[in-house]
Amino acid sequence: MKKKQFAVVGLGRFGSSVAYTLTNMGYDVLVVDKSENKVQDASKEVTHAIQADATVEKNLISIGLRNFDVVIISIGENIQASIMATLIAKELGVGYVVVKAQNKMHGKVLERIGADRVIYPEWDMGARVAHNLATTNILDYIELAPDYSIAEVTVPKKMAGKTLRDLDLRARYGVTVLAVKREDDVNISPKPTDKFREKDVLIVVGKHDNINQIEEFTS
Amino acid sequence: MKKKQFAVVGLGRFGSSVAYTLTNMGYDVLVVDKSENKVQDASKEVTHAIQADATVEKNLISIGLRNFDVVIISIGENIQASIMATLIAKELGVGYVVVKAQNKMHGKVLERIGADRVIYPEWDMGARVAHNLATTNILDYIELAPDYSIAEVTVPKKMAGKTLRDLDLRARYGVTVLAVKREDDVNISPKPTDKFREKDVLIVVGKHDNINQIEEFTS
Amino acid sequence: MKKKQFAVVGLGRFGSSVAYTLTNMGYDVLVVDKSENKVQDASKEVTHAIQADATVEKNLISIGLRNFDVVIISIGENIQASIMATLIAKELGVGYVVVKAQNKMHGKVLERIGADRVIYPEWDMGARVAHNLATTNILDYIELAPDYSIAEVTVPKKMAGKTLRDLDLRARYGVTVLAVKREDDVNISPKPTDKFREKDVLIVVGKHDNINQIEEFTS
Amino acid sequence: MKKKQFAVVGLGRFGSSVAYTLTNMGYDVLVVDKSENKVQDASKEVTHAIQADATVEKNLISIGLRNFDVVIISIGENIQASIMATLIAKELGVGYVVVKAQNKMHGKVLERIGADRVIYPEWDMGARVAHNLATTNILDYIELAPDYSIAEVTVPKKMAGKTLRDLDLRARYGVTVLAVKREDDVNISPKPTDKFREKDVLIVVGKHDNINQIEEFTS
Amino acid sequence: MKKKQFAVVGLGRFGSSVAYTLTNMGYDVLVVDKSENKVQDASKEVTHAIQADATVEKNLISIGLRNFDVVIISIGENIQASIMATLIAKELGVGYVVVKAQNKMHGKVLERIGADRVIYPEWDMGARVAHNLATTNILDYIELAPDYSIAEVTVPKKMAGKTLRDLDLRARYGVTVLAVKREDDVNISPKPTDKFREKDVLIVVGKHDNINQIEEFTS
Amino acid sequence: MKKKQFAVVGLGRFGSSVAYTLTNMGYDVLVVDKSENKVQDASKEVTHAIQADATVEKNLISIGLRNFDVVIISIGENIQASIMATLIAKELGVGYVVVKAQNKMHGKVLERIGADRVIYPEWDMGARVAHNLATTNILDYIELAPDYSIAEVTVPKKMAGKTLRDLDLRARYGVTVLAVKREDDVNISPKPTDKFREKDVLIVVGKHDNINQIEEFTS
Amino acid sequence: MKKKQFAVVGLGRFGSSVAYTLTNMGYDVLVVDKSENKVQDASKEVTHAIQADATVEKNLISIGLRNFDVVIISIGENIQASIMATLIAKELGVGYVVVKAQNKMHGKVLERIGADRVIYPEWDMGARVAHNLATTNILDYIELAPDYSIAEVTVPKKMAGKTLRDLDLRARYGVTVLAVKREDDVNISPKPTDKFREKDVLIVVGKHDNINQIEEFTS
Amino acid sequence: MKKKQFAVVGLGRFGSSVAYTLTNMGYDVLVVDKSENKVQDASKEVTHAIQADATVEKNLISIGLRNFDVVIISIGENIQASIMATLIAKELGVGYVVVKAQNKMHGKVLERIGADRVIYPEWDMGARVAHNLATTNILDYIELAPDYSIAEVTVPKKMAGKTLRDLDLRARYGVTVLAVKREDDVNISPKPTDKFREKDVLIVVGKHDNINQIEEFTS
Repeated sequence: MKKKQFAVVGLGRFGSSVAYTLTNMGYDVLVVDKSENKVQDASKEVTHAIQADATVEKNLISIGLRNFDVVIISIGENIQASIMATLIAKELGVGYVVVKAQNKMHGKVLERIGADRVIYPEWDMGARVAHNLATTNILDYIELAPDYSIAEVTVPKKMAGKTLRDLDLRARYGVTVLAVKREDDVNISPKPTDKFREKDVLIVVGKHDNINQIEEFTS
Repeated sequence: MKKKQFAVVGLGRFGSSVAYTLTNMGYDVLVVDKSENKVQDASKEVTHAIQADATVEKNLISIGLRNFDVVIISIGENIQASIMATLIAKELGVGYVVVKAQNKMHGKVLERIGADRVIYPEWDMGARVAHNLATTNILDYIELAPDYSIAEVTVPKKMAGKTLRDLDLRARYGVTVLAVKREDDVNISPKPTDKFREKDVLIVVGKHDNINQIEEFTS
Repeated sequence: MKKKQFAVVGLGRFGSSVAYTLTNMGYDVLVVDKSENKVQDASKEVTHAIQADATVEKNLISIGLRNFDVVIISIGENIQASIMATLIAKELGVGYVVVKAQNKMHGKVLERIGADRVIYPEWDMGARVAHNLATTNILDYIELAPDYSIAEVTVPKKMAGKTLRDLDLRARYGVTVLAVKREDDVNISPKPTDKFREKDVLIVVGKHDNINQIEEFTS
Repeated sequence: MKKKQFAVVGLGRFGSSVAYTLTNMGYDVLVVDKSENKVQDASKEVTHAIQADATVEKNLISIGLRNFDVVIISIGENIQASIMATLIAKELGVGYVVVKAQNKMHGKVLERIGADRVIYPEWDMGARVAHNLATTNILDYIELAPDYSIAEVTVPKKMAGKTLRDLDLRARYGVTVLAVKREDDVNISPKPTDKFREKDVLIVVGKHDNINQIEEFTS
Repeated sequence: MKKKQFAVVGLGRFGSSVAYTLTNMGYDVLVVDKSENKVQDASKEVTHAIQADATVEKNLISIGLRNFDVVIISIGENIQASIMATLIAKELGVGYVVVKAQNKMHGKVLERIGADRVIYPEWDMGARVAHNLATTNILDYIELAPDYSIAEVTVPKKMAGKTLRDLDLRARYGVTVLAVKREDDVNISPKPTDKFREKDVLIVVGKHDNINQIEEFTS
Repeated sequence: MKKKQFAVVGLGRFGSSVAYTLTNMGYDVLVVDKSENKVQDASKEVTHAIQADATVEKNLISIGLRNFDVVIISIGENIQASIMATLIAKELGVGYVVVKAQNKMHGKVLERIGADRVIYPEWDMGARVAHNLATTNILDYIELAPDYSIAEVTVPKKMAGKTLRDLDLRARYGVTVLAVKREDDVNISPKPTDKFREKDVLIVVGKHDNINQIEEFTS
Repeated sequence: MKKKQFAVVGLGRFGSSVAYTLTNMGYDVLVVDKSENKVQDASKEVTHAIQADATVEKNLISIGLRNFDVVIISIGENIQASIMATLIAKELGVGYVVVKAQNKMHGKVLERIGADRVIYPEWDMGARVAHNLATTNILDYIELAPDYSIAEVTVPKKMAGKTLRDLDLRARYGVTVLAVKREDDVNISPKPTDKFREKDVLIVVGKHDNINQIEEFTS
Repeated sequence: MKKKQFAVVGLGRFGSSVAYTLTNMGYDVLVVDKSENKVQDASKEVTHAIQADATVEKNLISIGLRNFDVVIISIGENIQASIMATLIAKELGVGYVVVKAQNKMHGKVLERIGADRVIYPEWDMGARVAHNLATTNILDYIELAPDYSIAEVTVPKKMAGKTLRDLDLRARYGVTVLAVKREDDVNISPKPTDKFREKDVLIVVGKHDNINQIEEFTS
């Protein structure tokens, strides 16, 4: 299968992160920014880096934007520029255009003019951090359904030395252990007689509130 | 157990998102910002909203910041203000101070002056979006170890109608299915004879590259 | 028939002109602008004048924008504000939204998000003035088809004293005289024997190039 | 007859529109602007494009402004510059100087210092749009006298299938039909027995209020 | 004879000086300026001081500008405002309007729109100072004709003790002594036998170059 | 006698006027300004024109300022720069330094640091214009003592046809006629029987109030 | 003896430090600043704090500046304001005016207009810190003559346990010990047999270079 | 002993003074500043002068900052830049980093991130000047302990002609005379019979309040 081609328009923190991560994953990435400095810095990291104003149609044509599979538009604080670049990208026929939005109104305009996906990085990250802070033993999570998640949970001190069977988390909290992570090893079929150690991390599935209760495990 | 008390300093997009999410989760949240407008808007959403300059020590004392369990400092673009507010919060004895940083240098200073956790929302979100774009059937993921993840994967069209046993993903790709999500139901002990349907979502564990290969399943 | 209700958002030169002209024609007009001064001046001319920021949804709701038949959005130089106000007006369900655009890209965005009519006042006026300058005896015109117009033409000096029949403009230039205007009287069925006077104005229909030739009439 | 020579000073939206329209009509046009970018863009469209500050007398001399028949001064928002350029153009002996004005006071000054014609594009276009919006079936019009116009009117649905004689618009509304336009054909001598179709457009002459009544035709 | 009524618009250095000097000469003076501070300071010195924007017609009407015999417009650096205020003053029917101009172009516009007198204070004063510096014994002068002046000349040291007859300035330099000033006394019919003293000042008439030669008197 | 050497620092309106006037009088003038444009324009008019920042000591040394007899410092609106340049000029040993001041405080500082003469061009010109306006028949004047002047006075209409003896201005007004100017001729010993004509100009000496009364001459 | 009265004009870092130190030493201090905030903060520390613009003569009169013995003018970065305030203070008759200067030119102007003492805080402190850094065992010093100082020197480790006589610093380095400080006690007549301890501090007098050599004491 | 190597980052008044003083003392000094002008001026005074932005890590690496013994960071008003440069310097392993701080908060952050010494030049100089002004006969002082100093004191007029024994300062005021300075000579073992002259300067040690009393000596 031919590798996907990515273009990132706008080298703010979000755009840079997308571009560098994709590059590290082995993809070809073209980046475009108005700032000569930013383009120069990026040129050491990504496949192609071009200085251009992305709100001018002919610029996007001349860099061959139409040939990319995915275009990520992350033009910092400039809502107008972000709208114009999105419009041009879609007019050029780019298949999948992802755009960073400042707020819901901005997002709505982007969708109307054809953006395939709208992202609110600070807002989404805020929500993720909030969950994490509320339940400090939950390291990360995937929301499967409202109020139902897979979560990565640190083992509370008081659980150390106990087995899965001792704890019987399913009965106590309605939570199922899918895997156990010890340092960099992941055991995806933990046995009922395995003893937990401090610093072990559980991969569990269950209701959000129930997962939270694990933190309060007391005996 | 007494509920944790949160204070959010700075009502930019990130700070607002943290504050509103925590409020929706049922926590008491105090928000502080210099802007009267932002404080007024927030006062309809959170427990307490106070207008104050968070870089002035006496302001943070008079709002009783020392009594909060967790303080999130998300002062937009102003690196100096973010450093000063963090220093004051730690001097006041706040137990856990989370701070949004602009860049690595900023982050390092914050750690040196006592920040308990430093967050780079746009950077982290960029990485997350990059993974997602690279492998469009992976909806979300938790990185367990470098190159080893739990991932939420949409079932490729060609898998529809096949059973877990037919597919034998472990043999083919070295990937284990932990659970299967069908609309809002999650089946955490799928049977080898269960048939997949289009739009089913698999919760799998395995190497990142291997999980990616599922997308290319062809027969 | 109930009279149409108009709202004009933005009191720049274009918006003011729309609002005052409609008021003079006997319509009720609501005007909205951010500037207190402009609203105060307008309040002496139009039915209602309200100071508000039209890019804030709740402002447009609270002034009852949904109840107007036609909303004209003429927010000066601020493309972003013009887009946001248009989106809100259409979301509120306004039937007919007319928007002033800065340039073609701006116009395209406006159309995508639902604007019913997009106007480029300076551009359109420029074209109109250019026609007028090119053919100084053409005072005004309506373009019926590309290159085919009804035009208001001053009578060249050399035609004074001649009759319609003498001139036989249809044979000479392929142009038909629909009416003749003498001072404030308009004769819509001119007779072949009527003599022209200097300063008479002809209402003619024909090809643009042919109408232009009238100016060069020499005998 | 020698073709008129035009110079356009100031490449804002209005000036550009005048220049491009004249060029499309086959005239030689010289454009002058302070902005290198605008001059570069224009140089692809018009005969000559020169970068110069039009408020400096020697600049206007060296480009030979005195040789042009008509000079259009459309210096955007800068009232002082517009006054100075007009003064210089008239001092150089240009025969016909057209100037865009911001407001009535500006216009008066321009007339006093010798401008041959003063234009208020946004204001005039606003009035034109207002008429149009008030009577949505009137597409365009020429004002022959106060309250007496030639207008281009769309045929109301209920008129479809009727003949001119059936309708007897002159008796009903005091309005005379000069021509009928069907797609791109214009019939300048419609017969009483011709039937109207939907989407036909009438060219009528009459009092403004009477023309408006056509829209309300009900049987 | 009824005393003249003066109004000074603009309280810069020039305008203030005109206003205060006229007040000291016993005239009623009205001053108008946009700046509250300047108006407050002036109110202690002149008959009336009003805060108003002089480029708004209704302001100049409501302060009764039409009733003044002479209006001095000295609006500092703002050429546009100075033009607008002059236009309004003349439209209101003020008999004599004096305006300070920035440069020759500005002056020309002012004359075209009706200014009765245009003044270039810094330019005129520069010329006056230059003459003075070139010939340091000439204290002040009135130019009667090009190159022919009445001048106030200090007596060169070497002339002290000599009589008018001794010196015979008319023969030597073609210069006539009209008067002699000794401290605060002025002798308008000096006798040929009067002896000059050091510090005496001569009022002479003659060619400019000749008057200059007095300085070099050597025996 | 060797001609004086002049240097003018600062090419605002006042400085330019001093420099150009001196040049026209045949003197060598060096001008110095920070603005390249102004220096370029001036270089066509004066002997030497140099671009330099006059508040930097070494610049004034390297242009040899110490060799000039008179230095005129007319640095526009920048009080600090004017003070610094004056200090440097005096430290370099320039014999006579003339400085334009903004206000009395500025003037005092300049005198304290050694300025030989301080000039307030707009203020002085304002006083001069005020006198002129108050007594419109006085064209120019030299103040000999407080309230005692030589003045250039236009002959009031009613004096036309009368002789000096008829009028007996000395008896009537205490004013002595020193000379009579008719077009470009100046008669410095007018006879008692000479008849005045309209447009003649009198050079008179007397008290200010008395000179003013000439205007009101009625029979 | 009546206590001296101090006034500090300008509450920057330098002015505040002067004002607070004097207050702590028991003196009455009046502070004046344009900033309301700074005056409010200072009012808690000093005897009197007044908000006023110190470049306006009447302000300094109305606060009775003439009655103070010493006025310290420390107007931050504004050279012009500092000059004006100094001039006014001396004109009012203040006996001793101390002024903070930005640079040597500024200082010279201040001296010319009457400042009794001119201080360059950052420059002087820079020199002091430089000495200190160059010779890290010299804690503080008083320069008695160029290259001859009293200095506070830490005892080098290798001197510990030795007596004054053992070391014979006068012979070795030409340096005389005036006193020895041990913690907070100061012995002003040290005996030749007293032994030094580590952390003792010597008060010595001698040539600068010689004092520096003490640091390198090796046996 | 190898000479210490110094680098000064930031060429404001404080940094320049440190750099020039060290250079005059014979040390090698490298200076770094963003401003090309400042670096050019400094290059004539110090060993090395480099233009670079000190908040960019690679810049500080490439100039070899790690090799310097002492780095002085005196980045004017920019708190953020000062923090970043300090962090980088310490990360690079510089042994002794001295930083100029704006205020106490700034100073605290600097200490937390590793600054070895924090200096407040204006504040420290203000305290020093205050002491000096309070006791005008004290020229300079070293604080040995709180309230106990060595001071340089001018001899009060009334002491002139008296001997040390006559005065018996130790008995009167508890103050010991360590040395007497007469012009540039310093007598470090004054005899009891030496007579003081006016303008002599005493080096004394004693309590601060007692030293102050010397000024009031009356017989």
